[in-house]
Amino acid sequence: MKIIIIGAGNVATHLGLAWVEAGYEVAQVYSRTPESAALLGQKLHAQYTHLPENVSRDADVYIFSLKDNSYQDVLDKLNLKSKLLLHTSGSLDLGILKGYSDHIGVIYPLQTFSKNKSIDLGHTPFLLEAKHDSDLKVIQELARAISDNILIISSQQRAILHVAAVVSCNFVNFLYSSAETVLLDNDLNFNLLRPLILETAQKVMSESPYLVQTGPAKRGDSTVIETHVELLQKYPELQRLYKDFSRQIIVSYQQENISNNDKL
Amino acid sequence: MKIIIIGAGNVATHLGLAWVEAGYEVAQVYSRTPESAALLGQKLHAQYTHLPENVSRDADVYIFSLKDNSYQDVLDKLNLKSKLLLHTSGSLDLGILKGYSDHIGVIYPLQTFSKNKSIDLGHTPFLLEAKHDSDLKVIQELARAISDNILIISSQQRAILHVAAVVSCNFVNFLYSSAETVLLDNDLNFNLLRPLILETAQKVMSESPYLVQTGPAKRGDSTVIETHVELLQKYPELQRLYKDFSRQIIVSYQQENISNNDKL
Repeated sequence: MKIIIIGAGNVATHLGLAWVEAGYEVAQVYSRTPESAALLGQKLHAQYTHLPENVSRDADVYIFSLKDNSYQDVLDKLNLKSKLLLHTSGSLDLGILKGYSDHIGVIYPLQTFSKNKSIDLGHTPFLLEAKHDSDLKVIQELARAISDNILIISSQQRAILHVAAVVSCNFVNFLYSSAETVLLDNDLNFNLLRPLILETAQKVMSESPYLVQTGPAKRGDSTVIETHVELLQKYPELQRLYKDFSRQIIVSYQQENISNNDKL
Repeated sequence: MKIIIIGAGNVATHLGLAWVEAGYEVAQVYSRTPESAALLGQKLHAQYTHLPENVSRDADVYIFSLKDNSYQDVLDKLNLKSKLLLHTSGSLDLGILKGYSDHIGVIYPLQTFSKNKSIDLGHTPFLLEAKHDSDLKVIQELARAISDNILIISSQQRAILHVAAVVSCNFVNFLYSSAETVLLDNDLNFNLLRPLILETAQKVMSESPYLVQTGPAKRGDSTVIETHVELLQKYPELQRLYKDFSRQIIVSYQQENISNNDKL
């Protein structure tokens, strides 16, 4: 199976490398930025181009990994009727590919990809969708070559998953970042938080997060909450988040604190 | 060195076990709840009591691990003048122990402790403070027996660290929990998010969170943000957090998106 990758960002790079490693041939890479096309092309021992008209029609499957709002524009410039076109976006509907080929599908890896950090895709969930069941087999083969964790879901479910991913990855990272700012301002090293951050994530690998919630808001400890809100006076944005989170956590666990008033 | 532990919650349990494992003697455990006192006492091969008047005066150091608002009450009932008294709270000032002994200090492990999950304390930061330098040596010895990561900081710095810990542990977990709720409502398994959650934490073990932020808000992708806000209509609380986070992230990275308009 010959693959052509449209796009040269983080997702394109990690997927391309994983397929090459699994023995697949990436025939060509397209990116509108010549340098990006060359860089990924070389990494994957593939041809590369930044000109849509030079994208080969001689492959079996075309993996699109673009910014959501670039899809339409790039698709309009290619002529890939009858080819299998797959997009890799969490938020885009399968329908975005409609009209460009009858063979369309989605292969969405639910993971956060950074430029210079390799990542074990082996257990990353790959969320698959296809217009035709026959195409689904090909998509499954491509996903199974990389990961043991594949699931067929609808565009609607994928959209929900994408929201959940933004909440538990992007927003979580922003909380890390906000904490880092406060520490640095007070001559404290972010290193001090790292074991806690890792343990907090590891804890929910086997448990439901609802059941392992800890902290002053969970305990309904308003004295600590008030002190913290005051300490954050210089950080009005984080202060507002602090209040909102604390209020929501208090409400979520109120009933529990009434019935189960033991020490934590 | 003979240790007596006042309290039998998660922190008391994990610290007690670690000291016993390191060869220290925990002579006695006090908890106002008889069952908790017995449970931890037996775990640590220590005597135990739920009566303040039965707390032995025959130890070198007393480790207090109570709810913040229980300290005063318990301390009032004990007579430990001249003994070394240490509290384990992130948010309490050293001064809370003032008047109960001249030898007072703090040994605060910056970690999240759960009842039934063992944890490697070996790299957990222990934040220490003492009224007298001579007592600091004893506290350092106690901390070093458990962890290779110890630091002497003031009560003010510890309070800041505690806020940062709440933000990057308790609030993070609440985001996991909110994501779980949305998934379950849509017949999706929380398992699907676990690799992402772990990778998000692992990423900041070596990097600054500010530098590894990803997602629609980071990219300034307002189409995706609007879709997500709409998808969260049934979850007004999470919807409000979503808007607030997105706005804050957009502001934080605005400058960068203007100057560095490449694909992610």
